[in-house]
Amino acid sequence: MDPVKVFLDESEIPRQWYNILADMPTPMSPPLHPGTGQPIGPDDLAPVFPMNLIEQEVSSERWIDIPEEVLEKYLIWRPTPLCRAVNFERFLDAPVQIYYKNEGVSPPGSHKPNTAIAQAYYNKAFGIKRLSTETGAGQWGSALSMACQMFGLECRVFMVKVSYEQKPYRRIMMMTWGANCIPSPSDKTEAGRKILAEDPECPGSLGIAISEAIEDTVTDENARYSLGSVLNHVLLHQTINGLEAQKQLEKIGVYPDIVVGCTGGGSNFAGLCLPFVRDKINGKDISIVAAEPTSCPSLTRGSFAYDFGDTIMTTPLLPMYTLGHEFVPAPIHAGGLRYHGMAPIMSHLVKEDIIEARAYDQIETFDAGVRWARTEGFISAPETNHAIAAVVQEANRAKEEGKEKVILFNWSGHGLVDLAAYDAFLSGKLTKYDLPDDEIQKSLKSIEGLPKP
Amino acid sequence: MDPVKVFLDESEIPRQWYNILADMPTPMSPPLHPGTGQPIGPDDLAPVFPMNLIEQEVSSERWIDIPEEVLEKYLIWRPTPLCRAVNFERFLDAPVQIYYKNEGVSPPGSHKPNTAIAQAYYNKAFGIKRLSTETGAGQWGSALSMACQMFGLECRVFMVKVSYEQKPYRRIMMMTWGANCIPSPSDKTEAGRKILAEDPECPGSLGIAISEAIEDTVTDENARYSLGSVLNHVLLHQTINGLEAQKQLEKIGVYPDIVVGCTGGGSNFAGLCLPFVRDKINGKDISIVAAEPTSCPSLTRGSFAYDFGDTIMTTPLLPMYTLGHEFVPAPIHAGGLRYHGMAPIMSHLVKEDIIEARAYDQIETFDAGVRWARTEGFISAPETNHAIAAVVQEANRAKEEGKEKVILFNWSGHGLVDLAAYDAFLSGKLTKYDLPDDEIQKSLKSIEGLPKP
Repeated sequence: MDPVKVFLDESEIPRQWYNILADMPTPMSPPLHPGTGQPIGPDDLAPVFPMNLIEQEVSSERWIDIPEEVLEKYLIWRPTPLCRAVNFERFLDAPVQIYYKNEGVSPPGSHKPNTAIAQAYYNKAFGIKRLSTETGAGQWGSALSMACQMFGLECRVFMVKVSYEQKPYRRIMMMTWGANCIPSPSDKTEAGRKILAEDPECPGSLGIAISEAIEDTVTDENARYSLGSVLNHVLLHQTINGLEAQKQLEKIGVYPDIVVGCTGGGSNFAGLCLPFVRDKINGKDISIVAAEPTSCPSLTRGSFAYDFGDTIMTTPLLPMYTLGHEFVPAPIHAGGLRYHGMAPIMSHLVKEDIIEARAYDQIETFDAGVRWARTEGFISAPETNHAIAAVVQEANRAKEEGKEKVILFNWSGHGLVDLAAYDAFLSGKLTKYDLPDDEIQKSLKSIEGLPKP
Repeated sequence: MDPVKVFLDESEIPRQWYNILADMPTPMSPPLHPGTGQPIGPDDLAPVFPMNLIEQEVSSERWIDIPEEVLEKYLIWRPTPLCRAVNFERFLDAPVQIYYKNEGVSPPGSHKPNTAIAQAYYNKAFGIKRLSTETGAGQWGSALSMACQMFGLECRVFMVKVSYEQKPYRRIMMMTWGANCIPSPSDKTEAGRKILAEDPECPGSLGIAISEAIEDTVTDENARYSLGSVLNHVLLHQTINGLEAQKQLEKIGVYPDIVVGCTGGGSNFAGLCLPFVRDKINGKDISIVAAEPTSCPSLTRGSFAYDFGDTIMTTPLLPMYTLGHEFVPAPIHAGGLRYHGMAPIMSHLVKEDIIEARAYDQIETFDAGVRWARTEGFISAPETNHAIAAVVQEANRAKEEGKEKVILFNWSGHGLVDLAAYDAFLSGKLTKYDLPDDEIQKSLKSIEGLPKP
C-alpha cells in the first residue's frame, strides 16, 4: 500500500519560526506613515500593537524562537499531518504525486490559530488585557477567540453585520470560546454610531469593522488590535507549517517540484511556501504558485504600489499588489480571499518572479473541491478549493508534457462551516464572473496620489 | 513539556478487527424472528444485508482481517491521534491523567466512517449497487454518503424531514458526497405515501425513515440496507479505534484505570472499550463507564428484554436494555443518543456488570463541553459532551479520594455542524429535564407480550 500520511512526533516540532526577511534577494520598500510619507517607526505602531510583536514585524533575524507557552498550545493539534492524496491522484490519472498539509485539524478548522495563539501570547506577555479585531466570514475571529481564551485575555470581535446574521455558526464558535462578538456597525464606537445614525440598516463591511476594532483599541490602553494576515509577523508565525512539511518530506525522501496555496491576504500560503522560497533563493529548482480568485485578482491584475491596508485609510501605506483600497469584490463564497491587497512579503516575491500567481474562477474551484471531497473525503474551505484548482491544472500540464511531478499544497482548512457555498454550487446557483477591466482601473484611481515604491 | 499526542505510523495500523463474541464470559441470547419467536438465521437477513456482512454479524472468530481496500480508505484519516488533555487536566486540578482518542479528524467529523467504509466495501464486494439508510441528525447519513462515493455505490438517505429542514449542513454534506438525501416521509415508498396521505405536513421520525429505507431496500434486489450502530458487525468495525488506543498507550507505557464513552446505540463506545473489556474479562482491574443522557436512559432505567430495534416493529427482536420501542425521547440536542434501545453486546456487558452505566443531564454535559472547548480548543459534538461529563465526575472523585487515576475516553466527534445546540445552551435556553418514571413504565408496556431473554 502507498504511504499516505507522515506524522512528526511532537518532539520533532520546529522550535523556531523562519523569517524570510533575512534572505530576501532585494530589499523591500518600507511601510510609510500616511501623513508624513516617511517610513514608520516602532513608536508609530505602539498604540495598535504590543512592542514585542512590533519587534518581530521589523526583525531581520532568520530564526525566531517559538516560546514554550506557544508550543504547548500548538501541540493541541500540531504537528499537522502531511498526507498524500492517493485517491485524488488516481482520479486525475496524471504522472503526479500530490501531498498536502492538513491544517483543517486545528480546533477552528484552519491555519489561523498558528498566528492567533502567538499573538495572544505576546500580548499577554506585554501586559495587555484585551484584544480587538474584525472578522468577515469568521475564520479569523473564531481563531483569535480561542487563542485569547487559552491565555486569559478578553476578546472583542467586530463581525460584519450581514455575516453575523447569515453565518451564525462562526458567531456561536466565538461565543463558545468566550469572546464578545459584536455585529458591526455597532453603537460601541464613534465610527459605528456615526454610520448607524446615517443608515440604521447598514449591513456593514470589513472596512467599517476594521475602523471599529482599531478605535476600540486605541481608546483603551489595556487593549491592542490583532490582524489575521498581511503583516510580516503574521506570516512569520505561519511558517511553522512549511517547516514541518520540510521535515516530513525529508522523512520520506521527497522534495516537491511545485508548491501551491491559495492567497487572500497571503498568510496561509506564506506559511507553507516561505521555507521553500528560501531553498529557491538558494538555487533550488522549484515552482511556487499562488492561486487567487478571478473576482479579486490582486496579484494577477493589480498594481504593485503603496496602498492602505484597509478601505478607510487608517493604516500605514504598504508596498503591495493592490486593486486599490476602494475595490469592492463581488460577493464570492471564498470570503477569506476577498481582500484588495496582498501581504508585502508575498507581493515582493511575486514582483521578483520568485512566486508565480494565477487566478481561478469560483466554478472551477468548486468543481475541483467537489471532486476532492468525492475522492479524498475531506470537504475543503471554499478558499482552499482555489489551491486544489491549481493542483488540477498542474497535474493536467504534467500529463500533457509527460513529466513526473511532485506537488505539495496547503489544505488550509475545512469547509464544514461554509457549506452554504457548496449548496449554491451543487444546485447550479453559482455563475462564472468576469471582472471588467474598467472596474479595476476605476478602483486603482484611489491610489493615484500616493507615494510609489 | 508534557507529551500531549501519540501518533501511530500508518504501518502500525491494526490489520484486524476484534470480535468480543469470542471472549464473552456468558452466552448472549440470540436475536429472534418476530413472527416465529425462533432464533433468526442468516437467510432471514439476506434481503436486508449482504451475506458477507451477515457472516460477520454471527461470527465468533476473535480476529477478523480488515480488507486492504478498507485499510486504504481508513488511512485517509486513521490512525487517529491519542491526545493528552493537559489543559483540561490543569483546569480540573485533580490527580488524573486524561487521554482521548480524537475521532473528529475523519472527513465527516466522527467515528461513523469506521463502519461506513467497511459496510460500503462489503456491499460492493457482494455485487450490490446501491445502499439505503435513514438518518436523524445526519452524522450517520453523511458518513455513509462519503463511503458509498468512495466505492462507487449509489447512496440514498432518508432524513427525518424536520432535521432535513432545520439542519441543512448535514444534508449539504451528503449532497457534496454525491448521495441522494430525501426528506422523510417521502413519496418514494408505500410507507411514506401512506403517511403523507394521512398528514401531508408530517415532520417525520426516525421510525418512519427506517421503514422507508428498509422498504426501499427489499423491493430492489440490487440494493441493501445499512445501519450505523447497534448490530454486532457495526461494533466490530469500530474496534479499530480501541486497538489503536492500546498500541498508542503501550508506546508511552500507560494503561488506563477508567475507560469512558457516550452511548446512544453503543457503537462509538464499543469501538474504544471492547479491547479493554477483553483485558477486564482476562483479569485486568479497570472501570468501563458508559455515559448516556438522562432523557433517554436505556442502560440506567430501561429493562433488559427482547425488543424491536425500530419503533415500527419490522426488525428482529434483539436482547437489550430498552425503554420500549414506543419510547419517544425529549428533543435533546444530542440526536445521536436518542435511541430507545442499546446494542445487544453492550447491553450484555452491562448486565454482566463488566460495563457500568451512568446518566447525565444535558446542562451538565454542555457545562463540561464548554469548559473543554475553552481549555482544549476543540468543540465537541453534543453526544461527546456526555463522555466529558463522566470524565469530570471521575476526576472529581479521584480528587476527593486522593487517588491518582488514568482516564481514557472517546472524543467521538466534533460539534461544528451542531453549533445551534451550543447557542441554545450559552443563551440559557436549555433546561434540566427530569424524565418521569411513569413515562418509562408506559412505554415499557409495548414489550410486555414479547419473549424474554
